[in-house]
Amino acid sequence: MARKAAIIGGGVIGGGWAARFLLNGWDVAVFDPDPQAERKIQEVLANARAALPALSDLPMMAEGVLTMADTLTDAVEGAEYIQESVSERLELKHRVFAQIQQSCPDTLIGSSTSGFKPSELQQNAANPAMIFVAHPFNPVYLLPLAEVVPSAVSDLDAIERAKDILREIGMFPLHVRKEIDAHVADRFLEAVWREALWLVKDGVATTEEIDEAIRMGFGLRWGQMGLFETYRVAGGEAGMKHFMAQFGPCLEWPWTKLTDVPEFTEELVDLIAGQSDAQSGQYSIRELERIRDSNLVGFLRALKDRDWGAGRVLREHDERRRVAVADTPPAGAPLVMAHMQVLPGWIDYNGHMTESRYLYASSETTDAFLRYIGADMDYVASGYSYYTAESHIMHRGEAKLGDRLTGTLQVLSADEKRLHVFVSIQKDGQEVASIEQMLLHVDMKAGRATAAPQAILDRLLPIANAHADLPRPKAVGRATGQRK
Amino acid sequence: MARKAAIIGGGVIGGGWAARFLLNGWDVAVFDPDPQAERKIQEVLANARAALPALSDLPMMAEGVLTMADTLTDAVEGAEYIQESVSERLELKHRVFAQIQQSCPDTLIGSSTSGFKPSELQQNAANPAMIFVAHPFNPVYLLPLAEVVPSAVSDLDAIERAKDILREIGMFPLHVRKEIDAHVADRFLEAVWREALWLVKDGVATTEEIDEAIRMGFGLRWGQMGLFETYRVAGGEAGMKHFMAQFGPCLEWPWTKLTDVPEFTEELVDLIAGQSDAQSGQYSIRELERIRDSNLVGFLRALKDRDWGAGRVLREHDERRRVAVADTPPAGAPLVMAHMQVLPGWIDYNGHMTESRYLYASSETTDAFLRYIGADMDYVASGYSYYTAESHIMHRGEAKLGDRLTGTLQVLSADEKRLHVFVSIQKDGQEVASIEQMLLHVDMKAGRATAAPQAILDRLLPIANAHADLPRPKAVGRATGQRK
Repeated sequence: MARKAAIIGGGVIGGGWAARFLLNGWDVAVFDPDPQAERKIQEVLANARAALPALSDLPMMAEGVLTMADTLTDAVEGAEYIQESVSERLELKHRVFAQIQQSCPDTLIGSSTSGFKPSELQQNAANPAMIFVAHPFNPVYLLPLAEVVPSAVSDLDAIERAKDILREIGMFPLHVRKEIDAHVADRFLEAVWREALWLVKDGVATTEEIDEAIRMGFGLRWGQMGLFETYRVAGGEAGMKHFMAQFGPCLEWPWTKLTDVPEFTEELVDLIAGQSDAQSGQYSIRELERIRDSNLVGFLRALKDRDWGAGRVLREHDERRRVAVADTPPAGAPLVMAHMQVLPGWIDYNGHMTESRYLYASSETTDAFLRYIGADMDYVASGYSYYTAESHIMHRGEAKLGDRLTGTLQVLSADEKRLHVFVSIQKDGQEVASIEQMLLHVDMKAGRATAAPQAILDRLLPIANAHADLPRPKAVGRATGQRK
Repeated sequence: MARKAAIIGGGVIGGGWAARFLLNGWDVAVFDPDPQAERKIQEVLANARAALPALSDLPMMAEGVLTMADTLTDAVEGAEYIQESVSERLELKHRVFAQIQQSCPDTLIGSSTSGFKPSELQQNAANPAMIFVAHPFNPVYLLPLAEVVPSAVSDLDAIERAKDILREIGMFPLHVRKEIDAHVADRFLEAVWREALWLVKDGVATTEEIDEAIRMGFGLRWGQMGLFETYRVAGGEAGMKHFMAQFGPCLEWPWTKLTDVPEFTEELVDLIAGQSDAQSGQYSIRELERIRDSNLVGFLRALKDRDWGAGRVLREHDERRRVAVADTPPAGAPLVMAHMQVLPGWIDYNGHMTESRYLYASSETTDAFLRYIGADMDYVASGYSYYTAESHIMHRGEAKLGDRLTGTLQVLSADEKRLHVFVSIQKDGQEVASIEQMLLHVDMKAGRATAAPQAILDRLLPIANAHADLPRPKAVGRATGQRK
């Protein structure tokens, strides 16, 4: 049976939590008295369904079941984890916690609060030990960070269980060691927000210019190394102490004069809202959300390719799921070897998957098969590999952005040196392309074909035998442009 | 003759400027009395050579010539642009400007200063109008941002020329409308730095935890949308005003208590340097630089795929160069249609060009031919295109990172609907792969093959006729795995 999470408050943040749990296979019950809540959550969920699968190299789990609960008590019943994302009003949060703990005093309750400390949230609670901060970042379904902040009375075993659950839904729980107003990340956001308001107010820069000053420069750095590691690199071989000696004294410079809080007048609000319209008004919020998500997917995939930062979180999430989901040997004949999704970089100017990406999808399929018969990365490191000598591709349909593709492989023939395969790339069970390939087992150092070792042949030849009885696809043996 | 830039001060920043100019085809003269300067610049240049070509979809220009000048006067002689990157000491900068303007009073002088205002830089100068701030961000060869700050006495035509030059070397000049201490971006960096020092000092978070709080969350957002556009999206359909109404009042909250400057004691420096060692000490600075650059290349390529933010700057840079480099009609029979360079993203785990990229190289060649016969982007926009029906690839050699490839195309046959071509991908005149393709002229709306218009046939058929006399490559008509 699927595990259950309860989400109290179904706005953009609550909806993001719901999407994360659902797409990771949890059932979710949402309570929010707003009659628009279900529509809003469905919109967040649609965004999440378009973006989150593009981060994974495994097929998605079966999505959990979403329920809109009539009462808060219905929502939390049987839940293993409860996340509160109601408005930032302390007395409202206290009422929600009191009601939850009437029926579930021992269930984990994370709060999405950006401002309140856990000790404030816990005031007057029936079981304060189970209430803690789990502060996420929008879009919750893509960004891994959740600041987990306990107080002195928190149950630390419960906190560890909460962190495990967050990891299970692909997040990075950052355990904040001391409670403090605004936790950690929002202190920086607040500092920058304050400076930005001054710059706009004083006419130094518009909202657009400020955004460019961030995203053309240090914003790119911070997506992968943060503040201190970036400066460590800037300090060069002389190290962090040298950097601090060089730049520390700047703290005393007149830049500090703008630490005041600008007055939050109607004029300032109008100025900023007007500039923001001029900057981004050509896009609807939905369009901006999709652009943002697509960009974040691109960053996260780049980091995943490099096994770094947030990309390492994604890899670990895949690994955890790979153990859970897979190690089921590929099934069927032909073998279903790969599941893929068409990513933005795969699209050409026609809006279709670009032709070289069909061969890429085929390589993914063949590589998975090679790993399966033991010709994996370690094997390649030992100096041997299968090289493709020749390929023939038939284009039979079109794949578009976001399409889910399956790669199947049939062994046409195999001997010690040669491996002749037929790969079919399919969308909804229909072939969009087929690729016939001849591979050779190669001694990479000698640069010539050589017999594969017995261990590989012992895995390969039985499959070849089993596939010998399969019908031979019509495209096999075909030359380009040959009349039917 | 190549244009010349002079770089005064050859540290990490000066070296980054030198690399940007050199890799964009400018000659560069550096003046720096430090005997280590040449070694340092060569190290930055090695990093830049490994990273910058990966951002371009065109072959790199011939690299300019780097000279280490014996005197400042030698360095600036004949330079069209001078960039000053000496230490942040105003009297030193004044001396440098005075010496430059003795021989070149009318040459553009950008300063890399992060702290000084242009009016301060211009004090007592022979020609203050030519001195301005051009503040870049490390690594200068990858991050597009350059804050361009004039003062009231600046020559605005000169500023526009400087911005054009910065665009020519792939940068994004952000014209800052009012001079202010620390310009724009560094105000934010300073604000965050200050908050971060407090958090470490107070034991709320370590340097590593702070970096995670940034790069797992808002750091990823800021690489692509900056501050205001991110908040606009967060505000949802209700818009920016709603967001401000909701979050503006937080300005009055106690988060403001930490706007003081922490005292910069030896203990604080040791605490931070120690934490930074624990966090990143397993990597050398060179390793961290390469990791950072590889991550930034990944982000920038993702944005380029999506034509957004810094990625749009890269695209525009390519377009500008495409006009400059190309539009020479193809020569020879077969036609030489494309020149390419093997980029880092084209390499597989064997260190070789991955097989799907041979088909990509072929597509680049065929696309160039299609544009040449009139089936260009505008033509596709009108609803017609050539689609690949079928391809046969022969692998005959190996290409590696940085190899320059040429794509030639021979028309095997052509009629109203069908276009049968043979593409050869060559390295140093040797074929590394051949691709035989059948393309069909398609009515994209109707989704079926249709006759090409006369205008295209008028260009295509004479080439087909001319190519009819060429020897037919042996690989033509070959099926995969066919015995010779």
